[in-house]
Amino acid sequence: MIASSGLSALLGTKVFCKAELFQHTGSFKVRGGFNTALSLTEDERARGVIAFSAGNHAMSVAHVGVTLGVPVTVCMPAHAVQFKVDAVRAMGATLELVEGDLVAHVMRRRDELGATLIHPFDDPAIVAGHASAGVEIIEDLPEVDTVIVPVGGGGLISGVAAAIKLAKPNTRIIGVEPETADVIRRSRAAGGPVAHPGPKSLADGLAAPVTGQINLDHIDAYVDEMVVITEDSVRPAWRELLAHGKLAGEPAAACGIAAIRTGLISVDPDETVCLVICGGNADFDNLGG
Amino acid sequence: MIASSGLSALLGTKVFCKAELFQHTGSFKVRGGFNTALSLTEDERARGVIAFSAGNHAMSVAHVGVTLGVPVTVCMPAHAVQFKVDAVRAMGATLELVEGDLVAHVMRRRDELGATLIHPFDDPAIVAGHASAGVEIIEDLPEVDTVIVPVGGGGLISGVAAAIKLAKPNTRIIGVEPETADVIRRSRAAGGPVAHPGPKSLADGLAAPVTGQINLDHIDAYVDEMVVITEDSVRPAWRELLAHGKLAGEPAAACGIAAIRTGLISVDPDETVCLVICGGNADFDNLGG
Repeated sequence: MIASSGLSALLGTKVFCKAELFQHTGSFKVRGGFNTALSLTEDERARGVIAFSAGNHAMSVAHVGVTLGVPVTVCMPAHAVQFKVDAVRAMGATLELVEGDLVAHVMRRRDELGATLIHPFDDPAIVAGHASAGVEIIEDLPEVDTVIVPVGGGGLISGVAAAIKLAKPNTRIIGVEPETADVIRRSRAAGGPVAHPGPKSLADGLAAPVTGQINLDHIDAYVDEMVVITEDSVRPAWRELLAHGKLAGEPAAACGIAAIRTGLISVDPDETVCLVICGGNADFDNLGG
Repeated sequence: MIASSGLSALLGTKVFCKAELFQHTGSFKVRGGFNTALSLTEDERARGVIAFSAGNHAMSVAHVGVTLGVPVTVCMPAHAVQFKVDAVRAMGATLELVEGDLVAHVMRRRDELGATLIHPFDDPAIVAGHASAGVEIIEDLPEVDTVIVPVGGGGLISGVAAAIKLAKPNTRIIGVEPETADVIRRSRAAGGPVAHPGPKSLADGLAAPVTGQINLDHIDAYVDEMVVITEDSVRPAWRELLAHGKLAGEPAAACGIAAIRTGLISVDPDETVCLVICGGNADFDNLGG
């Protein structure tokens, strides 16, 4: 938890950053990954785990498997960013690059291997693991008034919101989605999970094509407000995260700044605001646009 | 103090970052600035303080003066980076932009105002203030083996090295200068302070045209080794600081990484290395080169 005088001055409120970018593999994802893998039986561990992801979840599950000595297979789309592919390979996970239907491939391989699927968000053990970030926020910053969380498939906010609301119900919890990767908005409007046909954003860590019922239920129960930022607001906010926050986060991590800067979230000078800086795996060549 | 799994993997040693970029005004400079201003008599405080700098020291002294209610005049070269000029003005300091001889101007204005000059490095109170960073390194990381410090005029390393060597003499202290801004190397070769005719580096925070005898004396007494990095090594190291360290430092802050990556500093896998991330006031448009 880092107090940021620079972001406080910029945003006109008391800003603290929950700096998940410093986690192993550079994002919050290891929280849920470790919790899931550590919940397996001996027999399940022996058969291994499998995951699909284009990015942070892939690196997380590779790290978790290799660290715990659990056989781990990571399936990534063939077009995934090279440095993330390289990172998974370097950790020693079994890597499968997939053309075509990634989910169908991973389900088939799961059955062939007898492995346990570690889902990126649609799983109680993942949500419970991510909740540890919420517990730490309340422990480190008990005076917090507002917590702002970037939202992709909804795993992080499900855990963070539950942990905080159960401990301190008067805390305001706000989720932020990019307009071009808004699977939660679409699913809430439809009354249940619906697929996004082509989520795409500079905030690539939030471009989830689906969400889960467990995530929608947690958002309904524990999140005060969901806001949707414009795609154009992401890059300036990302630059402000670096220049004013001094944190080399990924674009997704700047979505809270974007929401405040574009007036979608109002903050007071006396308010204590925690921005969840969800990760730091970025290609900084994209900073300039 | 931030443990960095990313930089540890990159550099093949146990890396911790002393994250001075999160300081008020974005650099370590406020340490010496506050110590100097707080050492003044009532009468001296009433007459105010004055400083000259193109960058971080200017912002630091402006912040210190305004925070303590001491009249503060900051003299900056007319060609200084706009966002640093704007920052000084926004803090409420009296700003004087100077064409020509900056030091002559500030000496004349000091005499006219009866103000106390807060020097960027050549002053015992500045060195003592910066030493607080060294005290904190030893407190937070008592097992540290090696501390690597970026060096401009020598104020930071003077304080850090003294604090650490007096507390734990077997700690290795290494200073890093850019080859194109090497006033310490030149001065040590000459046997005393000599001016650098035109220091210029991507690591602009280290481009000091002079050093002080007190700084040379501290380096002689407390620093194990000074290394000089190539200018070409700065930008790749800066990018690695962001991508692997997840810290949006300024180029100067990456000089320790550059020195290790180019083989000028050897580190062992079992060694605990502290990189002093001296500041974070950068124009990130320069990342790409």
